Amino acid sequence: MAAANMAPRMPVLTADTTQVLVRNSHILEMQSDVLFHIGLTISQKERQQIANTFGDVKFFVTGGSAERMTHFARLVAKELDIATPYGYQLAPIGSTSRYTLYKVGPVLVANHGIGMPSISILLHEVTKLLEYAGAHGATYIRMGTSGGIGVEPGTIVITSEAVNNKLEAVEEVAVLGSTVLRPSICSPEVRKDMIAATTDVGLPYTVGKTLSCNDFYEGQGRLDGAICEYTLQDKMDFLQTLANAGSV
Amino acid sequence: MAAANMAPRMPVLTADTTQVLVRNSHILEMQSDVLFHIGLTISQKERQQIANTFGDVKFFVTGGSAERMTHFARLVAKELDIATPYGYQLAPIGSTSRYTLYKVGPVLVANHGIGMPSISILLHEVTKLLEYAGAHGATYIRMGTSGGIGVEPGTIVITSEAVNNKLEAVEEVAVLGSTVLRPSICSPEVRKDMIAATTDVGLPYTVGKTLSCNDFYEGQGRLDGAICEYTLQDKMDFLQTLANAGSV
Repeated sequence: MAAANMAPRMPVLTADTTQVLVRNSHILEMQSDVLFHIGLTISQKERQQIANTFGDVKFFVTGGSAERMTHFARLVAKELDIATPYGYQLAPIGSTSRYTLYKVGPVLVANHGIGMPSISILLHEVTKLLEYAGAHGATYIRMGTSGGIGVEPGTIVITSEAVNNKLEAVEEVAVLGSTVLRPSICSPEVRKDMIAATTDVGLPYTVGKTLSCNDFYEGQGRLDGAICEYTLQDKMDFLQTLANAGSV
Repeated sequence: MAAANMAPRMPVLTADTTQVLVRNSHILEMQSDVLFHIGLTISQKERQQIANTFGDVKFFVTGGSAERMTHFARLVAKELDIATPYGYQLAPIGSTSRYTLYKVGPVLVANHGIGMPSISILLHEVTKLLEYAGAHGATYIRMGTSGGIGVEPGTIVITSEAVNNKLEAVEEVAVLGSTVLRPSICSPEVRKDMIAATTDVGLPYTVGKTLSCNDFYEGQGRLDGAICEYTLQDKMDFLQTLANAGSV
């Protein structure tokens, strides 16, 4: 339809703020954007509703399993004293077939599933959602279980940088036949705030590098996978190498 | 307890069959095995039940989303004419918090979530499950959507080898600081059977290499991610490179 083709392009802020996270000029050409995996479509028509609904988001908190993040969303509501309308309960937004997404006041909560590919899709789509909503500069926090190398059980581990298997603080992204390296460092301000919050509630904590893996069994040196071609000693040597490099 | 410590070790077949897929001698030392992500524990006591329940599995079929695999499990029951006991319905086995697993006659069906890390955990745990059950030599089939480079929509794409971003038919696994390369080739017998089955139902098909990615947006050359630093022409050039190398 000619009318549709002539509709104004869906504007996306790209130039006049330093906090914008979307780095894709092609989005300026799009009439609508399907955030397929979280199950939200943003067209010209829905744009204002998206701004009204998500424009106040200050934090995006994510973790692996849906159950855990549902529990966390309820805790956020309780802690921030956000009243649930009488006769209602917290419900996930969009499609839950891959991710479960909640909005609790200024906090967006979602589970990211298993591994980097899964969290990568969620980050692309949530980042676009927040940009369309005008929620620039939201803080992203990933919560999860830490192996805790040389650390007492129960200690809060605050990541300074997420390192790969080669102990480099980068994420390797395969892009059109090339490997692009992206830094995987926690912002110093966020780290400072995390330390302050942990101290505030009186929990023991440590700050250090943490290992990111693309494989649960071999990647983390477990001895009980379907394939294991190393010894317990090999595993302990690798953990020692990680510890020597400042990993916790 | 002394009695528990002295219980016979849980036997795992490792030497006397060529079809065994578990390659981990450490498992011989374990009294019980927790298949954590699929939510099954296999101890000495459960071992016979596992053999009774899963010993007849001939095929393991997996795909991304839980809904799709639930639908597929129902289709398998219908196609194989497997009667559902009166007053019952097909129900997932183990925990559904990460994967949804069905057993329909000789076919084990599960969704694998998004990306290689997620499918890797499932393969480790299902492979151990099938070995504990004595279901040696089951055929593994992954079903999914194919981009179909240069292929008519509706064509069944049968993978000869899954290639990475560098067009190599290997999966790179990070193991204790090293990168291990594992072949990612479809067995010629399975490929032959897939072609025969596709011909049988009269569907158009093609056989070729398929690209495996660890990233949905940049990894597959999409233009609508939160980050996109290449042009449409760069994308088309990469797709042409893939096509020239025999990818579909």
